[in-house]
Amino acid sequence: MQKIITISTDRRNGLYDITNEVEEIIRISNIMNGIASVYARGSTAAIMIQENWDQSVQNDVITLLNRIIPSGVWEHDRQDNNGDAHLKAGLVGPSESIPVISGKPGLSTWQNIFFCEFDGPRSKREIVVTVIEDKQ
Amino acid sequence: MQKIITISTDRRNGLYDITNEVEEIIRISNIMNGIASVYARGSTAAIMIQENWDQSVQNDVITLLNRIIPSGVWEHDRQDNNGDAHLKAGLVGPSESIPVISGKPGLSTWQNIFFCEFDGPRSKREIVVTVIEDKQ
Amino acid sequence: MQKIITISTDRRNGLYDITNEVEEIIRISNIMNGIASVYARGSTAAIMIQENWDQSVQNDVITLLNRIIPSGVWEHDRQDNNGDAHLKAGLVGPSESIPVISGKPGLSTWQNIFFCEFDGPRSKREIVVTVIEDKQ
Repeated sequence: MQKIITISTDRRNGLYDITNEVEEIIRISNIMNGIASVYARGSTAAIMIQENWDQSVQNDVITLLNRIIPSGVWEHDRQDNNGDAHLKAGLVGPSESIPVISGKPGLSTWQNIFFCEFDGPRSKREIVVTVIEDKQ
Repeated sequence: MQKIITISTDRRNGLYDITNEVEEIIRISNIMNGIASVYARGSTAAIMIQENWDQSVQNDVITLLNRIIPSGVWEHDRQDNNGDAHLKAGLVGPSESIPVISGKPGLSTWQNIFFCEFDGPRSKREIVVTVIEDKQ
Repeated sequence: MQKIITISTDRRNGLYDITNEVEEIIRISNIMNGIASVYARGSTAAIMIQENWDQSVQNDVITLLNRIIPSGVWEHDRQDNNGDAHLKAGLVGPSESIPVISGKPGLSTWQNIFFCEFDGPRSKREIVVTVIEDKQ
């Protein structure tokens, strides 16, 4: 089962919770055990597993990345002024593979799946979810 | 084949080598070629592939992460004072997919699989290992 | 389908585009939908998805990693003076899982697949590509 989640983003930097969308794709796949590979298309975006009790950790992620990867100081900025966005995306990475256990994402209580936008706002961002069955 | 490795941790920050446990799960799966998806459950934990010649690189990983992600300066700290642990976990990431080659983990000589604890000690931490066969 | 890409590297730190090699392995697998798991063997190497419009972002990646992970200040340096290389490799990570869509890598326009060398030059580096079919 392979499906694409489409979202829009409203900020330059922001985390967007896509856990429900991934869970729904796993549900309709009817796969009980395996993995769900989640992949962010876009070289200024990424996937991060993170807590979603409230907004605080999401804000801290943005603060941290802005601190270690400041904007405006990169060679690539001479092209389109988003060198920091590419570096954040590359360091966090676009892919996470989540176990599917009993037909659900095998996340722990405080783990949620986030799409990370580093060069928004964008009207259309795509996340590819591929659910692979464990046949044994 | 899907199995859960359970470990306990004895420090706030520490790396724990789980290579042998992953290798054993691959062995009993009888899968000769494919991938082993290793996933740390817990939003203050992660998986890192790293050298295990001695303790030095593990110590350096902790030193590095404490340097770029100091404790006590995050919005989330007002809740439960572990903002740094969530950020370390998110940046390192909970999942790694390792090739299975001839029935063994396709690691290089100096690559070992580590569970990273960032908010211990904990009596029980879970790592889900899913071995998927390459049918071709 | 599991194949190994072999490359040589000519610098201590450098990114090497392996997108064409991964695409070719997907092509000969005849798998139309699934995932391609890309894995760098070597505890001083990694895989990063990044833009390849020109050399600028690659240079910026090296600059960033040298800034947050300086050389010569790690416990491991007393052994073989490459502590920074291990830390860069661990933080970026050796594995990325890319969706296979209609027989091709499901990358966005500006995403390319890079092998990251952090302790070169090396005459032989190996990247394992495992293509797993989505049967549904």
